[in-house]
Amino acid sequence: MIQKNEIPVIISTGDPAGIGPIISVKALNNFRKKKIYLIGDRAQLEKLIKKYVPDLQEKSDEILRFSENKKIDNIIPSEESGRLSFQFFEKGVEITLKNRDYALVTAPISKELWLRGGINYKGHTDYFDKKFKNRSIMFFYSEFMKVALFTHHIPLRDLWRYLKREKIEIFLRTLDYELNKRFKLNLELISGSVNPHAGEEGYLGDEERQLITPVLKKLKGEGLGILGPYPNDTVFFKYRDRKDIAIVSYTHDTGLSPFKLLNFFSGVNMTLNIPLIRTSPDHGTGFDLVNKIDINEKSMVKSIELAINLKKNERK
Amino acid sequence: MIQKNEIPVIISTGDPAGIGPIISVKALNNFRKKKIYLIGDRAQLEKLIKKYVPDLQEKSDEILRFSENKKIDNIIPSEESGRLSFQFFEKGVEITLKNRDYALVTAPISKELWLRGGINYKGHTDYFDKKFKNRSIMFFYSEFMKVALFTHHIPLRDLWRYLKREKIEIFLRTLDYELNKRFKLNLELISGSVNPHAGEEGYLGDEERQLITPVLKKLKGEGLGILGPYPNDTVFFKYRDRKDIAIVSYTHDTGLSPFKLLNFFSGVNMTLNIPLIRTSPDHGTGFDLVNKIDINEKSMVKSIELAINLKKNERK
Repeated sequence: MIQKNEIPVIISTGDPAGIGPIISVKALNNFRKKKIYLIGDRAQLEKLIKKYVPDLQEKSDEILRFSENKKIDNIIPSEESGRLSFQFFEKGVEITLKNRDYALVTAPISKELWLRGGINYKGHTDYFDKKFKNRSIMFFYSEFMKVALFTHHIPLRDLWRYLKREKIEIFLRTLDYELNKRFKLNLELISGSVNPHAGEEGYLGDEERQLITPVLKKLKGEGLGILGPYPNDTVFFKYRDRKDIAIVSYTHDTGLSPFKLLNFFSGVNMTLNIPLIRTSPDHGTGFDLVNKIDINEKSMVKSIELAINLKKNERK
Repeated sequence: MIQKNEIPVIISTGDPAGIGPIISVKALNNFRKKKIYLIGDRAQLEKLIKKYVPDLQEKSDEILRFSENKKIDNIIPSEESGRLSFQFFEKGVEITLKNRDYALVTAPISKELWLRGGINYKGHTDYFDKKFKNRSIMFFYSEFMKVALFTHHIPLRDLWRYLKREKIEIFLRTLDYELNKRFKLNLELISGSVNPHAGEEGYLGDEERQLITPVLKKLKGEGLGILGPYPNDTVFFKYRDRKDIAIVSYTHDTGLSPFKLLNFFSGVNMTLNIPLIRTSPDHGTGFDLVNKIDINEKSMVKSIELAINLKKNERK
């Protein structure tokens, strides 16, 4: 029975051969009074609950109400683990869409194993783009650093296919709208750049002068809060620890290298411009870490917290 | 009279309209027993000595023995300040080359003002490349992070002109040789990548599989200590605070964004593969900072310390 104001969270536990199921179960410890439903292999998750949160065993039927036995004893990273991680994710999306009070948190999957397992999506974000016929935005959140990626999982060489004035404009407008809607904060946008030294007046590349600066000028003229383009190599230092801004990076690595350097265990990856709340830890499947070390679930905990807070914001 | 084992340091004080002269003079405070010679405008530097290190006024003839009056009262960033900064730099190089015991430290100049002032070099590094008919290497040093740039001041779009197996191989061999020679440390090289997730097995770009990995394999086979290619977005986190490694970045921003985020005031920029020791603060001219705030000279201090230490290593 869901209480008024309660926000149930669905967690798709990711690739069953990775650390996803472990961090999902360990995170339960931080949300004892919340409704958290894990989607994964029931037997695997029951074992992990027994190991990491034994006093929650009596609630495991409730926690695992959307999980089934898939018979995956000793599963290794494989086409099968890839396919299962997709099933868990897709089921999570379906349940979240059917239950408007729910938020979705997704544990890590392997894009390569999705591909090898015959799943025709290049990851969670690509799935959303196709499902919602939309261009979703990949956004990384921590209390002290926020980064939006204009492009993400593409070969660097293909960047210029996306670098068009119209695409930059739509991206920035959507980002601004979504951030205000989701966070109820007046976050200022700070644009990074494409070239070293933001092109140094065209001397080190002209994408800033030709594409980015004209778009920023237009948007500023309309009152949108955005500054830049600033050089990537100093913008993260300049705005370090500023809670009230979000930095726009034009490539995956210029944004995520500084973000992960400071927020590896506390960062959250989330998707903007989709009709549900979806957050995710900012790290990968950690196939090499399973059974080896004490797995850090902090990014998963932060992902669940953020999902709940964003859902609360929707009700404000 | 230069004592045995003494290492005189020449400082070209950079653009006289920027913070270069200020940080150069302020840094003197940390090297009272060393021989430091400043090259810049004599009157400007005398005033700054009076202001920041008044008790060194009696030594100012010695400190300024290579400086002349250029009559630049109230100079602003301009073609003239650009040209002067080049004269100071070129004189510094000449003196350092003539005196094999000397090391050179260069304060910041503006590439744009060099260009506008008719100086046909795209910065210090380009000057060295042309002077020594060599390909110098831009290397960033701090105690806890070291980054070498495969390319630096080029439009991102031109990266693919440089990304050739042979060029990567020569770069890595030279870097390895130079680092061992200069630092007398067996630094391990860690290769970053070009594409997101280091190309994810070709799925997000093929420069790693086609170019970088084969070169690394060849060099490893010869016993050179190098690992990778690793994804740029996690390699800096993974090797954070490791003193014994140097990370190779293929572009200016993927290397310098994380470096400056953690080392803005303590980082040193240095040039490898030239026949002299040259270090430099890792920041710019700071034209907007002059007269405004208390200028932080720490990166200049670190640059001088490193220059002296590297020169000492040459004698080992």
